[in-house]
Amino acid sequence: MKRARLQVDRKVLDSVRNFYAAGLNFRAHIEWANREHGGNYKVPVQADIGYRSPNALIVSGEDIVIPMDAAGPVEFEGELVAVIGKRAKNLSEERALDCVAGYTLGNDVSERSWQKSDRTLWRAKNCDTFKPMGPFIVEGIDPMAQQIEVRVNGRTVSSYNTGRMIFGVAQYISRMSRYLTLHPGDVIWFGCDGATMPALQPGDLVEVVNEAIGVLSNRVVRGT
Amino acid sequence: MKRARLQVDRKVLDSVRNFYAAGLNFRAHIEWANREHGGNYKVPVQADIGYRSPNALIVSGEDIVIPMDAAGPVEFEGELVAVIGKRAKNLSEERALDCVAGYTLGNDVSERSWQKSDRTLWRAKNCDTFKPMGPFIVEGIDPMAQQIEVRVNGRTVSSYNTGRMIFGVAQYISRMSRYLTLHPGDVIWFGCDGATMPALQPGDLVEVVNEAIGVLSNRVVRGT
Repeated sequence: MKRARLQVDRKVLDSVRNFYAAGLNFRAHIEWANREHGGNYKVPVQADIGYRSPNALIVSGEDIVIPMDAAGPVEFEGELVAVIGKRAKNLSEERALDCVAGYTLGNDVSERSWQKSDRTLWRAKNCDTFKPMGPFIVEGIDPMAQQIEVRVNGRTVSSYNTGRMIFGVAQYISRMSRYLTLHPGDVIWFGCDGATMPALQPGDLVEVVNEAIGVLSNRVVRGT
Repeated sequence: MKRARLQVDRKVLDSVRNFYAAGLNFRAHIEWANREHGGNYKVPVQADIGYRSPNALIVSGEDIVIPMDAAGPVEFEGELVAVIGKRAKNLSEERALDCVAGYTLGNDVSERSWQKSDRTLWRAKNCDTFKPMGPFIVEGIDPMAQQIEVRVNGRTVSSYNTGRMIFGVAQYISRMSRYLTLHPGDVIWFGCDGATMPALQPGDLVEVVNEAIGVLSNRVVRGT
């Protein structure tokens, strides 16, 4: 079957106004972050969504620029992304996926030293170029059964299934829509599972891969 | 002197993509929030910006809708807002204000029980209608010398001067622009000082007032 798909280009990115992100949504990632980065993250007890800001979005093929003064480590997080296609409010879980135009991939690039030191996530998660998204928005896939892989320089460094989300896509959307209106172009990023190492180095090619959606591919460079 | 001014209408709100907010930027407000709401907020040591999401924006004259299941208290926060007019990156503090098109007012309406219970601020700060902004964007005022007042049903309940910011408008913009590009239409909200009581009740008229900018006026209603 050939699925309907739309390339994520600059015009698609410019239509993103509300940029939601679950952040913590997989147990093994939370446990790993606490162990590896000395975090104190708790397993969420309800589907509370977080935010990013559209300034950081780039398409597949553009460079991830690590700011000159970032001490690092800078890590990848390969994620499933829902793109909203219809204005929606007060959706039941059963009807929640009706407002989704399709799914794509995101790389929630994260500077871990700033994630610890700063009062908010603004530099850790939202420097310009830290949010690659793409390569295609694909209709008709099951968001709870997607294998997502991350490759660095061709080597697989992460592989997990979206079926292990703590709160599923429909649960998030239904709960969000009780309090806020979802608009066409809004995106929701659903977090990643497991470890997010090795740290990204200038020169690395980082790819987020899903069979139906394709390969989100970005080169890492150091800012000047 | 007649200052250039632009009305904040739905079209202006629709042009907001990146919605930044300082959150904590005045000592007396931090001390009050810790005392009154049992918070554990620390005085920020650097100008770390936070986010809101554009879904919550409304203009002057529209209703603030308190969700049916909000236990409250729901409180006002009257704030100065900078509206970006030019694409900008790497601005010195001396040049930081060059990218600002003008200033307006914002009411950072906050549901305090959700601010405590939820993992993020999404319901506390970002329910639909929780971010009134306006009534005008005004050029040529000194952002560090504005008296901002909040009135509830005509009675003054808050009054402070923006000169007491912990980090000033130019400091925030300069630091932000080292890591992210500011775009025309982006807004930055600078926090409020002092207490934010009494809690808003259905039927209340809440107004944020500044001599140069005007009166941002919104009625409070309960959702159905």
